Amino acid sequence: MKAKVYVTIKENVLDPQGSAVQGALHTMGFEEVGKVRIGKYLELNLNTSDRAEAEARLTAMCEKLLANTVVEDFRFELEG
Amino acid sequence: MKAKVYVTIKENVLDPQGSAVQGALHTMGFEEVGKVRIGKYLELNLNTSDRAEAEARLTAMCEKLLANTVVEDFRFELEG
Repeated sequence: MKAKVYVTIKENVLDPQGSAVQGALHTMGFEEVGKVRIGKYLELNLNTSDRAEAEARLTAMCEKLLANTVVEDFRFELEG
Repeated sequence: MKAKVYVTIKENVLDPQGSAVQGALHTMGFEEVGKVRIGKYLELNLNTSDRAEAEARLTAMCEKLLANTVVEDFRFELEG
């Protein structure tokens, strides 16, 4: 089973990396770019076939390691 | 218009960050985790309504700044 995990900075938390990229894009002439938010995208292979268990285990992985839930949100998709 | 950009490390390129996360997950008891690949996920607001132009401009942004096309692939989705 394959999992795609998206970790994003919460809406009301500052994203200095995103602001820097926005500034760089403006400097390069991409003036149409508004707000930029940068997160993480993870692909995990899971050696399990139980979807419900995989979802519970993935939630635990995100809460314990993959995301800092104080300032980040996460969501995931399971395939296969 | 909102763009979601996914930047991933190419399949045949080593991902030491992913290996480290895989090792950490194993240490924490998540033994079902196989290969882990870590990429970037960006959300951009674009002040334009021309979808074709937005796609061309986004491709240019990815090639020039957002992705290192030597070792990374990118793809994006446009909404709105």
